Amino acid sequence: MLEVCLAGCGGMLPTPERWLTCLWVEHDGEAVLIDCGEGTQVALREAGLHPTRLGTILLTHFHADHVAGLPGLLLTLGNNGRREPVTVYGPQGVRELLSHLLAIAPGLAFELRCGELPAGEGAAFSAGGLTVQSLPLDHRTACLGYALELRRKPVFLPEKAEALLVPKALYRELHAGNEVTFDGRTVRPEEVLGAERPPLKVVYCTDTRPAPPIAQFARGADLLILEAMYADDAMREKAHEKGHMLAGDAARIALEAGAMELWTTHYSPAFTEPEEAQRRARETFPNAWAGFDGKRTVIRGAEKR
Amino acid sequence: MLEVCLAGCGGMLPTPERWLTCLWVEHDGEAVLIDCGEGTQVALREAGLHPTRLGTILLTHFHADHVAGLPGLLLTLGNNGRREPVTVYGPQGVRELLSHLLAIAPGLAFELRCGELPAGEGAAFSAGGLTVQSLPLDHRTACLGYALELRRKPVFLPEKAEALLVPKALYRELHAGNEVTFDGRTVRPEEVLGAERPPLKVVYCTDTRPAPPIAQFARGADLLILEAMYADDAMREKAHEKGHMLAGDAARIALEAGAMELWTTHYSPAFTEPEEAQRRARETFPNAWAGFDGKRTVIRGAEKR
Repeated sequence: MLEVCLAGCGGMLPTPERWLTCLWVEHDGEAVLIDCGEGTQVALREAGLHPTRLGTILLTHFHADHVAGLPGLLLTLGNNGRREPVTVYGPQGVRELLSHLLAIAPGLAFELRCGELPAGEGAAFSAGGLTVQSLPLDHRTACLGYALELRRKPVFLPEKAEALLVPKALYRELHAGNEVTFDGRTVRPEEVLGAERPPLKVVYCTDTRPAPPIAQFARGADLLILEAMYADDAMREKAHEKGHMLAGDAARIALEAGAMELWTTHYSPAFTEPEEAQRRARETFPNAWAGFDGKRTVIRGAEKR
Repeated sequence: MLEVCLAGCGGMLPTPERWLTCLWVEHDGEAVLIDCGEGTQVALREAGLHPTRLGTILLTHFHADHVAGLPGLLLTLGNNGRREPVTVYGPQGVRELLSHLLAIAPGLAFELRCGELPAGEGAAFSAGGLTVQSLPLDHRTACLGYALELRRKPVFLPEKAEALLVPKALYRELHAGNEVTFDGRTVRPEEVLGAERPPLKVVYCTDTRPAPPIAQFARGADLLILEAMYADDAMREKAHEKGHMLAGDAARIALEAGAMELWTTHYSPAFTEPEEAQRRARETFPNAWAGFDGKRTVIRGAEKR
């Protein structure tokens, strides 16, 4: 199960109406945060998300609206009692970025680790019980999208275990993928387990032009979160120049990816009606919704088998 | 005339209830901002203060809750069309601080100047039409208080000018301090001007223990803004250890300074009832008020002659 909260949905600068875009993904009491602009620690608090559960921060890129909140959040983590290490991942240069930002956050109460990811190619690593993959995006600066996957065990089929007279006390062992022996007999997991299940998958891509690799990267996502800096087609040229996409682009990518659901985010402060834009986008991709500060969901993957 | 707005009143971290402490002082369309923590650009916007009028930023010290909002504010200034230079003043080390913070605010659309002030002694300079003085405070790190003064011309006494038969067209010249000659006669300014008037004075001191020099520095202030991290006497030891003062200390300093009015600010997130503390503080200093986000006043100095 993944608990997901889009704690902010704005782009460029925090305003009285919107916090800056950031995503909280929590599994089993451990949380991963993607992006941390100015005010993100307040956005998390407003959304009731307790930062001490935060062990991993993924940065997409180093524009201020995605990183300026990092010193404050790290200090608050320490003041709230975090003592376990925290790891910050980001594209090449993240170590240098941290050295600058930590100038105003000296003496953290926990170890801060840093994972520098290749800016030009994808990478995969584990964080917070999840598998994370990165994808180079098409922005004005090196920028990474992230896919977070939660591997799932195959379904346990109790009717098969019963037929094999397996004692109930051994079900958990079998479900964990281990053979069990009882009454001189051995039962292998594959005798009582269903088919492999695809992982639960959340994909977050901002800031970026509508780059072709995104759809493949987001294939089968339970939740796809894409930027939509503007909606109006008249903004296409400006969006391209600034390295962004339109709400319609996001819907087309979600359709091509076969995603279950799309949330848009990272709205320009001048883009005041994202709900209206998503109503139109649903003609392209029916499960498209406008992100808002604090929008949340729980991904159980039940529909997906 | 000075327009003053305490856009934020919190300390330590921004919360859903309070922006971080910062002060806006505007004179004749030019503004000076003191301190710029995370979220200050949103606080200014909520208070209706337009940042493009901002030419000077004074930093008290380099703790994140006083400076982390600087990169975002500077970027927003540029995006809002500021092209005239902006000067950031702060204690020794401010140039290095800026070099770190500007790592996430490259390519500003205006010239950023930097004024490094001595950390161990006071300094005086001009900014935004005001005279600024700094005072070393007693915090855990080098920290400066600031006094902002608006010099005032003496009152013009029209009855004296009339008695001397000065043509009305020459009143302005005399009020500006220049002699005038008419009908072969010369009139000197002191013949038509009242007594010297003290400047309008706003003093801002945070973060600091209740250091003795503050009262002298704040002598005769129209508005004295002092930190009051905590209120309860039980917090005295903690306040001292962390380099802060109590609400009662602030009232005693205001009394000793002979200030016209006191606002407290920089409350601990745990200090939820500053109004109650100020009710008690008014037993010591009758014109003591709890600052809140967006508290404002206009200082005309009329009462002060």
